[in-house]
Amino acid sequence: MVTIGWEEGKVRFLDQTLLPLEVRSVLTDDYRVVGEAIRALKVRGAPAIGVAAAFGCAISLFDPLLTSPRDGRTALAAASSFLSGTRPTAVNLFTALERIRRTSADPAITTIEELRTAVVREALAIQREDVDACAVLGRLGASLIAKGSALLTHCNTGALATAGEGTALAAILEAHRQGNVTRVFVDETRPLLQGSRLTTWELIQHGVETVLITDSTAASVLRHGWVQGVFVGADRITANGDVANKVGTYPLAVLASRHGVPFVVVAPTSTIDLGTPDGSHIPIEERSPREVTHCAGSSVAPEGIRAFCPAFDVTPNDLITSIVTEKGILRAPYGPALTLACKGKTAP
Amino acid sequence: MVTIGWEEGKVRFLDQTLLPLEVRSVLTDDYRVVGEAIRALKVRGAPAIGVAAAFGCAISLFDPLLTSPRDGRTALAAASSFLSGTRPTAVNLFTALERIRRTSADPAITTIEELRTAVVREALAIQREDVDACAVLGRLGASLIAKGSALLTHCNTGALATAGEGTALAAILEAHRQGNVTRVFVDETRPLLQGSRLTTWELIQHGVETVLITDSTAASVLRHGWVQGVFVGADRITANGDVANKVGTYPLAVLASRHGVPFVVVAPTSTIDLGTPDGSHIPIEERSPREVTHCAGSSVAPEGIRAFCPAFDVTPNDLITSIVTEKGILRAPYGPALTLACKGKTAP
Repeated sequence: MVTIGWEEGKVRFLDQTLLPLEVRSVLTDDYRVVGEAIRALKVRGAPAIGVAAAFGCAISLFDPLLTSPRDGRTALAAASSFLSGTRPTAVNLFTALERIRRTSADPAITTIEELRTAVVREALAIQREDVDACAVLGRLGASLIAKGSALLTHCNTGALATAGEGTALAAILEAHRQGNVTRVFVDETRPLLQGSRLTTWELIQHGVETVLITDSTAASVLRHGWVQGVFVGADRITANGDVANKVGTYPLAVLASRHGVPFVVVAPTSTIDLGTPDGSHIPIEERSPREVTHCAGSSVAPEGIRAFCPAFDVTPNDLITSIVTEKGILRAPYGPALTLACKGKTAP
Repeated sequence: MVTIGWEEGKVRFLDQTLLPLEVRSVLTDDYRVVGEAIRALKVRGAPAIGVAAAFGCAISLFDPLLTSPRDGRTALAAASSFLSGTRPTAVNLFTALERIRRTSADPAITTIEELRTAVVREALAIQREDVDACAVLGRLGASLIAKGSALLTHCNTGALATAGEGTALAAILEAHRQGNVTRVFVDETRPLLQGSRLTTWELIQHGVETVLITDSTAASVLRHGWVQGVFVGADRITANGDVANKVGTYPLAVLASRHGVPFVVVAPTSTIDLGTPDGSHIPIEERSPREVTHCAGSSVAPEGIRAFCPAFDVTPNDLITSIVTEKGILRAPYGPALTLACKGKTAP
């Protein structure tokens, strides 16, 4: 199973909206198909979105009508503009697009072939860096999980959300391989049910004892003292350590804090946005009301009802026990630690 | 629209599992049909369950084969036993059954006809008391809602949950008639979506501006300062003021407290259980995993996945700003206030 991959001038991605009922991948040479896939959450998860955007840019260069680097840069700009408009919250998208733009701007590039090679190389580097980051995130995150721990997670942060094994889920899976995880409670994660559809599917494949719950049951699980840690991913981490993540993360952090359960964010440095001072400045995507008024394709609310459907919420840094990055495990105060972790990184 | 009604030896109830797509009622003379309707949430809401149980007992007496009060009491005991096993958490069920039992035990009853008359009269009294209580709850609850308030509610506490206009929703509707409510945010209330299916349907009929949200979006709404009060019902209130209510109520109370928003419980005294000291002693019903693994009839999780599906959670009394009963608005410490409000009431 490949979440997102490069195949000789084309991109292959798994259509995650069909999971777990159907495992079907799409092969395309059209950046608009990639962009629409991001918009429709066929490809989702902040790191996977970054990789998909980079590959989307790369395929725009394979139009045989392009003959010069100038043509190529024009095509890239159009693809980048389209891709940047798909989803506003995950910063990985913008970081990846900026890396591709800088690469393509290299004045040493003199032919369209050289431009293709350079951009594909950069896109593959973004992918490989994410694979490598996931491996480290898994190892570092697992070091926070003591033997006999039951854990709680929200949304999907596994192989389906990244180019590697995942962020928070990689930590859980690594701890499971070490024999330290007794069970994992998974929030279903309304409205799009990435928890029930994707995370349970991944966990079962790894033989992890999995218990699915509705999002608002998490509070009872925490209150009963049934979990020793809450592990989540991130779509954007601001300079002060505030975290935008799937809607429902913030109440989970409040409840974990109330019940003395560590609340751990696991994310690669590509998710850190030092250019945004705090969570109040993060653009929060609002999705179609239909995602709330419908369930599994069926209407579950009166016709024409108004709905408010933000895809994300913001968890303030004081509710976060630690932020695990591939550069190390960060603790409050997050400002200096995040700056240090991002040294040498391209800003979006 | 009648949620639950008595029709000459039969019970009519609205099948709420079909709403809002279809408005269909069921007429039955079989207490097992009533019991199964309670179990399947065709009839739900603590006060409505109490009324349904009383009517269910009453119809068991209309079997023409019953000829003596002794026959009748045996039939009643069977019906009561069956009905008491349907749902464990709402105390109204047990209170109603105990009232019917006491009524039927009157030694002055000498014929089956007299027994029928006495039991039907008591069942209708339970219904009428709930109608009256709802009217007072609406008036008292509305007195807590200042002009220009936006409110948030969870699950369904309206006409569909009671014999009258409702509990928390009656307060909201009365405040709306007074011109004091700007809008109402409604939690969809997974897993069975009583918020999206039932509460929005009732609010729209009353012309209230309604915004549907997923349960975990409520935290963002509270954090934005968009609501001035959270109004919920109750399935059981213990002697110390702890409240069992639809799962998701507890995290809502924690978030409301964090953001300084009043958290108001509205319930008739029939929901108060002085015989249970605190929330830790309330039996919490667990529903079928299917309610979480399926949405609107479709599977949304891998086959065979384990799920934990409590129907209720417990909100500790210190998170509750006030408890509105038909005997008055109670404030902490709740113990003495609840005892006073229940003076003369039948215990379950």
